[in-house]
Amino acid sequence: MKMSNMLVSTLREVPAEAEIDSHKLMLRAGMIRKMAAGVYNYMPIGLKVLKNVEDIVREEMNAAGAQEFLASALLPAELWQESGRWDVYGAELFRLKDRGSREFCLGPTHEEVFTDIARNEIKSYKQLPVNLYQIQTKYRDERRPRFGVMRSREFIMKDAYSFDKDQAGLDLSYDKMHDAYVKIFNRCGIDAKCVAADSGAIGGSNSAEFMVKSEVGEDDVVFCTCCDYAANIEKAPSTPDVAETEELKDMVKTETPNARTIEDLVKFFNTTEKKFAKTLIFNADGKIVAVMVRGDREVNEVKVSNALGGVVDLNMATAEEVFAATNAKVGFAGPVGIKVDALLVDEEVSKMFNFIVGANETGYHLENVNYGRDFEGTVGDFRNITIGEKCPECGGEVTIARGTEVGHIFKLGTKYSEAMNATFIDENGKNVPFVMGCYGIGVTRTMASIIEQHHDENGIVWPLSVAPYHVSVIPVNIKDEAQMEIANKLYNELRAMGVDAILDDRNERPGVKFKDSELIGIPMRVTVGKKITDGEVEFKLRDGEMEVIKIDSVLDTVKAQFEKQGVRL
Amino acid sequence: MKMSNMLVSTLREVPAEAEIDSHKLMLRAGMIRKMAAGVYNYMPIGLKVLKNVEDIVREEMNAAGAQEFLASALLPAELWQESGRWDVYGAELFRLKDRGSREFCLGPTHEEVFTDIARNEIKSYKQLPVNLYQIQTKYRDERRPRFGVMRSREFIMKDAYSFDKDQAGLDLSYDKMHDAYVKIFNRCGIDAKCVAADSGAIGGSNSAEFMVKSEVGEDDVVFCTCCDYAANIEKAPSTPDVAETEELKDMVKTETPNARTIEDLVKFFNTTEKKFAKTLIFNADGKIVAVMVRGDREVNEVKVSNALGGVVDLNMATAEEVFAATNAKVGFAGPVGIKVDALLVDEEVSKMFNFIVGANETGYHLENVNYGRDFEGTVGDFRNITIGEKCPECGGEVTIARGTEVGHIFKLGTKYSEAMNATFIDENGKNVPFVMGCYGIGVTRTMASIIEQHHDENGIVWPLSVAPYHVSVIPVNIKDEAQMEIANKLYNELRAMGVDAILDDRNERPGVKFKDSELIGIPMRVTVGKKITDGEVEFKLRDGEMEVIKIDSVLDTVKAQFEKQGVRL
Repeated sequence: MKMSNMLVSTLREVPAEAEIDSHKLMLRAGMIRKMAAGVYNYMPIGLKVLKNVEDIVREEMNAAGAQEFLASALLPAELWQESGRWDVYGAELFRLKDRGSREFCLGPTHEEVFTDIARNEIKSYKQLPVNLYQIQTKYRDERRPRFGVMRSREFIMKDAYSFDKDQAGLDLSYDKMHDAYVKIFNRCGIDAKCVAADSGAIGGSNSAEFMVKSEVGEDDVVFCTCCDYAANIEKAPSTPDVAETEELKDMVKTETPNARTIEDLVKFFNTTEKKFAKTLIFNADGKIVAVMVRGDREVNEVKVSNALGGVVDLNMATAEEVFAATNAKVGFAGPVGIKVDALLVDEEVSKMFNFIVGANETGYHLENVNYGRDFEGTVGDFRNITIGEKCPECGGEVTIARGTEVGHIFKLGTKYSEAMNATFIDENGKNVPFVMGCYGIGVTRTMASIIEQHHDENGIVWPLSVAPYHVSVIPVNIKDEAQMEIANKLYNELRAMGVDAILDDRNERPGVKFKDSELIGIPMRVTVGKKITDGEVEFKLRDGEMEVIKIDSVLDTVKAQFEKQGVRL
Repeated sequence: MKMSNMLVSTLREVPAEAEIDSHKLMLRAGMIRKMAAGVYNYMPIGLKVLKNVEDIVREEMNAAGAQEFLASALLPAELWQESGRWDVYGAELFRLKDRGSREFCLGPTHEEVFTDIARNEIKSYKQLPVNLYQIQTKYRDERRPRFGVMRSREFIMKDAYSFDKDQAGLDLSYDKMHDAYVKIFNRCGIDAKCVAADSGAIGGSNSAEFMVKSEVGEDDVVFCTCCDYAANIEKAPSTPDVAETEELKDMVKTETPNARTIEDLVKFFNTTEKKFAKTLIFNADGKIVAVMVRGDREVNEVKVSNALGGVVDLNMATAEEVFAATNAKVGFAGPVGIKVDALLVDEEVSKMFNFIVGANETGYHLENVNYGRDFEGTVGDFRNITIGEKCPECGGEVTIARGTEVGHIFKLGTKYSEAMNATFIDENGKNVPFVMGCYGIGVTRTMASIIEQHHDENGIVWPLSVAPYHVSVIPVNIKDEAQMEIANKLYNELRAMGVDAILDDRNERPGVKFKDSELIGIPMRVTVGKKITDGEVEFKLRDGEMEVIKIDSVLDTVKAQFEKQGVRL
């Protein structure tokens, strides 16, 4: 395209609304504009990148044998009532009514729809396996939309759903999707690590996330420093730190006025956090649950939820609920005599000696408490792993980094097919539920993640595979006929080769054109200036040095970059 | 693709929910499935056609210099309040609130969004013209969704918005879109006629619709039998039928018990409908308006609305409102002594002599009424043109046919840019509003219209340009290794040529495969059977006769079809 005909919306200033690099650059390069909190318009350059990412996803999904489908975004409540999610999905669901007062939601995910399609269209095991996917707009009314399209309320997702006749089939479908995802993220030029994940509220048996490391990521990812192990902190098992054996002392109630936090108590008792066991009280779908971890540990809510058989709403208990359970103000809860529906004790706590806990009496704590002698509960892993703990695979040390989830693959099993009575006739003539998997990629988030990994102080540095344009041809002086003639000729020849070139024929200074080209992140730049009298132009990779090359070698030089980066022309 | 891996959802039975051919065939061919009233899922085969139509639209829009954009479907109320449409857009608008109780709608059209983008991004006349388009999901809560995707509540539309510095620029942008639309519908293989249309509630100065003739169309289109004139009936001007001159007689009040309809009155007075003038009473945005047309004519509400300066809500008056205006029951309204905010008199009525009207008294009519002597009002064209009237262009006879609108091009002028203060700096350094045009194509409706024009008793007959697959390769006996080898070879060679071929390797009888291929509407079929021993296969165009051809001429035969139909390989 000729830039004189384009709506170029680059900004020199860094917009105040943006916090992270990808968001700033998407605004500055004129890729997106905000419509409302977490709702964006895609400007022409942004949409071009989005379509390129979509095409990569589409090609790899098709190559893996999946078929593209397109479901409605407007979903009737009845379908969600059938799966049981209508009532449990909270404020994240955009709900609305039509003119006849029938209830709908805007789909945040489409398990119900695809399960419904399968039960209507697939009758026999002979038709299996089937993998259907779509690239579609999703809606989630996030409590805190932020970071541009990284966490938005309207976003584009590729979601796929596989239907198999048995677990072995699902395993195969899952592995195919895993491999397709590796290819997709590779082709997009991002380093996305596949990490073990918890199955979460969506249900099912096995799941992995594709994470990109990012300081602004919303997940903690545990990596082994020795082996390939990687897992979401939600999932990574902790290893109990075994305290040195002590003789059991008599339990003592001690007045601890004004000391309610672990910090206060450490001072008061002049000891370390490790000598305490915290008792945190939750409301888990209406049940009151206490969870004990060592004073320096963090409760892992996913592990807690799973131990309780899957909790939809897990919240810290209110002061009233704490009082009902402990007969004390917040800050004095402990396991001895507590009135709760369940008491979960982190394994580490069960192996401590003579530790300090709240006394369930305002202003008091108990010293020399011991598990088994003084209280009992459900022992398990209820805390987050910490840096330096043992890798569950090799025993090496783990480290933790922030990450952003760009993809998720998930063995759902029969959770939805059973709930929605989605069955097929198997080899024995019996009606059995589909064994399902689901597989998501945040397409708009992937686009932002590519920028997070590919930018510098001047702008975006697109991998060729997803770049909005491949080559920018810049005549230095548009009033110079010879320069314009060569620039036009190169532009047309590149386009005839299948290269998506732009000609910056705007009446602007070369500096402005260079800055725009770098900000937008076009991988190659051909500058047509005075050197044409020597038959030469300047060639520059976005992240390389400027070289002077012969005019008649431009096409080959560009072609070589496509070959080098493995991008088809 | 190999059909053994495809989700094939063809139906032998005609689904009860469908009334028109395209809807029946889209269901039977497994292209769409209903999710809710007017809300559909696109199955793999349906989506392939949809994408093909989209690609044609995209190519021609790009060729016309438009740039693709993607706006959110979730639109904040504020933007619609600015244009004034939030309060006047009725029940068709899906409205919802987010978790913070902020109001949103699901966009039924995007004038506000694109005007907002233009005012933020375009500063100077130097950047003009700009034409931005999107292919996007739209939402309209239709009172009566029907005919499948022909009139649905969630549908895909291409909408474009042009921004020019003046009317001459808009004229050029509009003409470019007209030409692009002609190419698009031609390439899609449908006969769509460009007809003059009313500007309607959307406002503006000039507009045309692309209509396909259809018995189930929701518009009446007026065609001249002599020249090229074509217009929506909303727009086509009528020509007053001039009655023979009579001497004015004295007005007489006559008791007409039990006669309230024109039919009753024709009997009662033993005369013809042409001797009556009907007085219809409307509520037009709260004002009470009476409209008079000859007894055998129909009021044209669009003409009425335009005469009143644009009415948002035009409804027949209630019995109470009629009584307030006429002091009589419904059926006795007339112009003499009526109490209304406006009295609109069709020109034809103003030229009648000694006609009969309601007396504004229950049970009475007035005879020998004459315009000018007995009452006065605003004279104009307020009725529908009828078959046989004069063409406004050439004076020939017009005819009327039902049609479905697949596209609409529209000169908006400065309606939105003025309302939303969207201005740029012109050559003289002055801030002036953009001169806008908007241009829509119903993409999903176009797909259905193609089927309406291309089907037979066995199924769909896709034009090659939009067909879900180009060629179906059918081995007669999948257990015959020689047949399978040749079928596979042809399948692979066709795909290597860029032909989207499918191999029907399902374990089904040939009859089933032929039926599916015809129902889905694949343009070419290559049947690999016993004749391979003579080096031959059967070749059949979907709408042609079966021929026996040499195996090694298959590729050329297929290629020739692409050339013949002008479709690029």
